[in-house]
Amino acid sequence: MSSNNNDSNSTIPATKERYSTFFTTLFCWVLWGSIIGIVVGSTSTLLINLNDYLTEVRQNNPYLIFFLPLGGIIIGYLYMYHGKGSRKGNDMVLEHIHHGQGKIPLIMGPMVFVCTFITHLLGGSTGREGAAIQMGASISESVNRLFKVNKIDRKILILSGISGGFGSAFGAPLAGTIFGMEAVMIGKTRYEALIPCFVSSFVSHYVAEAWGIQHDTFTIQTVPQINGINVLKVIGLSIIFGLISIAYSQSRHEIKSLSDKYLKNLMFRAFVGGIVLIALTYLIGSRDYLGRGLPMVNQAFEGQVPYFAFLAKIVFTAITMGTGFRGGEVIPLFFIGATLGNTLSFLVNLPTSFLAALGMISVFAGAANTPITAFLLSVEMFHGEAVTFFFMACMISFIFSGHHGIYAAQKIFEPKS
Amino acid sequence: MSSNNNDSNSTIPATKERYSTFFTTLFCWVLWGSIIGIVVGSTSTLLINLNDYLTEVRQNNPYLIFFLPLGGIIIGYLYMYHGKGSRKGNDMVLEHIHHGQGKIPLIMGPMVFVCTFITHLLGGSTGREGAAIQMGASISESVNRLFKVNKIDRKILILSGISGGFGSAFGAPLAGTIFGMEAVMIGKTRYEALIPCFVSSFVSHYVAEAWGIQHDTFTIQTVPQINGINVLKVIGLSIIFGLISIAYSQSRHEIKSLSDKYLKNLMFRAFVGGIVLIALTYLIGSRDYLGRGLPMVNQAFEGQVPYFAFLAKIVFTAITMGTGFRGGEVIPLFFIGATLGNTLSFLVNLPTSFLAALGMISVFAGAANTPITAFLLSVEMFHGEAVTFFFMACMISFIFSGHHGIYAAQKIFEPKS
Repeated sequence: MSSNNNDSNSTIPATKERYSTFFTTLFCWVLWGSIIGIVVGSTSTLLINLNDYLTEVRQNNPYLIFFLPLGGIIIGYLYMYHGKGSRKGNDMVLEHIHHGQGKIPLIMGPMVFVCTFITHLLGGSTGREGAAIQMGASISESVNRLFKVNKIDRKILILSGISGGFGSAFGAPLAGTIFGMEAVMIGKTRYEALIPCFVSSFVSHYVAEAWGIQHDTFTIQTVPQINGINVLKVIGLSIIFGLISIAYSQSRHEIKSLSDKYLKNLMFRAFVGGIVLIALTYLIGSRDYLGRGLPMVNQAFEGQVPYFAFLAKIVFTAITMGTGFRGGEVIPLFFIGATLGNTLSFLVNLPTSFLAALGMISVFAGAANTPITAFLLSVEMFHGEAVTFFFMACMISFIFSGHHGIYAAQKIFEPKS
Repeated sequence: MSSNNNDSNSTIPATKERYSTFFTTLFCWVLWGSIIGIVVGSTSTLLINLNDYLTEVRQNNPYLIFFLPLGGIIIGYLYMYHGKGSRKGNDMVLEHIHHGQGKIPLIMGPMVFVCTFITHLLGGSTGREGAAIQMGASISESVNRLFKVNKIDRKILILSGISGGFGSAFGAPLAGTIFGMEAVMIGKTRYEALIPCFVSSFVSHYVAEAWGIQHDTFTIQTVPQINGINVLKVIGLSIIFGLISIAYSQSRHEIKSLSDKYLKNLMFRAFVGGIVLIALTYLIGSRDYLGRGLPMVNQAFEGQVPYFAFLAKIVFTAITMGTGFRGGEVIPLFFIGATLGNTLSFLVNLPTSFLAALGMISVFAGAANTPITAFLLSVEMFHGEAVTFFFMACMISFIFSGHHGIYAAQKIFEPKS
């Protein structure tokens, strides 16, 4: 299990040299992590502000949704002819870290930004952290090339770009620190990447804050007591959330593989996706499932949402992401989890806002296969409330989501059970 | 880096079989984790209650300290003639998980309990979580033999025994879940052990609570604001805490290797250790550094402690543990960190209780090389207050503690930097 790993004990050099190496390496990681953090924090600010603006434009001009198929064609065109292989997005970044072959195209960052803007302006159901992460990876790659870092270090630097993107996109530097390391390899966390990831995540978060970014906040009104009954309820709920995370990942993968089979042309594929989304919007007579859908996430914490809101969001997002639109899947996962939690409040006697929060965090934990990141996110988002329940929920949802997940390129080093 | 690991994707069997395997394995892990949790939670309760009682006896009978050298002889005798190799304690458990050779002697648990009781009754400077952890490992080994688990599973089961011991000893089931996995292998976290560790840690914690155990609480009066100055202060402090954690680990290792060289006989070694501790106690004219020393830890949060209390505790504990007395090192590390934090409050303008808490957590993070566990512990102990500072402190102390640590058998899979 462990014998074929390199054990550094045997190769530790003499003390003096060791300390000088330690401080040189530390200095480099802090420097690079900071540079990446400053740049990524700034680009994330641009992303967040412009996205918010475009969402406002969309809401003021309802007709824009009819341009969604056209937007799909543009996105398809961009990735077909100018993407240099970057259309695999997050999966490409993960694969690169595993195999280290080839280069991450620098165009990936700007490309995903433009396509995310188009998607948001025209109403695709998506988030934005995917864009922040891919931009982070592109920026790290630029730093790589600038400083001519060697191959192993390059991977670590890319991880730190991911951390910066996540930390600044969510205002969650703790979760950002761990996300890259945890997402890349389930079951094997690479602590040696800790320093640059930590620096980059915190720096990018504070840079974004310095630029004036304010993140969405959600509040748990009442935290239930820890007792046998409530623990059992949380366990049961977490299993449901874990299974729903599978439902989402599988829907998205299915739509993608159907498209790969029957709609090979990326432009036509996204065009069809756009048409279907318009049809669905008019079929259910609601625009609540377009864009990030934050108003309904808020409503899930404060009031009541339609019973099947979570299902609608699964369908809308799976189609949006499965046919090639861009953005990110975490916010949609929050939406799915929070609304499902809200719906379940009719069955389970627990405070609604607590159920919404629990759903939000655990659907993310299961779908992204990142229980520690999800837990840290809960600590940051809910200011350390209900930590025990969140911890349980993240672990259980992670376990029950099995080997399914939104990142196809994740490597599972040890079966979960 | 990753290519020589087994990638389970290639060996995933057909869907139906996969699910049945999943549920069978899950059921087994939950069952075994629960059994271990129930037993370990109960033995930890015994440990905690009896220890508290013996500490009271010691405080009411100051002359008992003169029996410390005699106690040392008894402990030395027990390990020499009845220990079956278990005198390496925690390190033995860690080594067993790495190499999987031989068996963990079942006697280890009862042995460490008895010796911890002797140490506490007579005034050695020690904690008790080492005893809880080794008892956990012994109990897991019994379950192993009872159920005839295969070799890989055995290691996981032992990890879950460690988790149960930690979770119940500190009333910290979150930290307990991760501790075993993180402590055993720095830089490589074995997620496949997550389920039994999680179950065992929570079950043992709640079993101990059901038996009436109440854990020590410490309160941060004021949490400083997050701003540039305070962040820089916390970074600087964490580096100091990280270096102090090295000071402790190295002192203990030094005393141990000196003893190995000059005091080969375990009875004579502990006898000498006892004499030195008596001499030191009368030299400084204080009994504050004997036993767990909780009153002074409390004082570090609420008032003022002697400037060099941290140094005295380092010396007392290094001698106690280095000459073969038993207990645990986490509470002494808390003591060292909290009193150092208190001392530093004269130099750094931050609330005293906050500094004590920060020191407590970061010295532990550095000495045990377990940043995530230490962070989770801070979340549990301080109810989610000041999480950002604690996270920073754990990471930085971990980084600066280098390859030093209290567990000699820890495996470092990747250099930290």
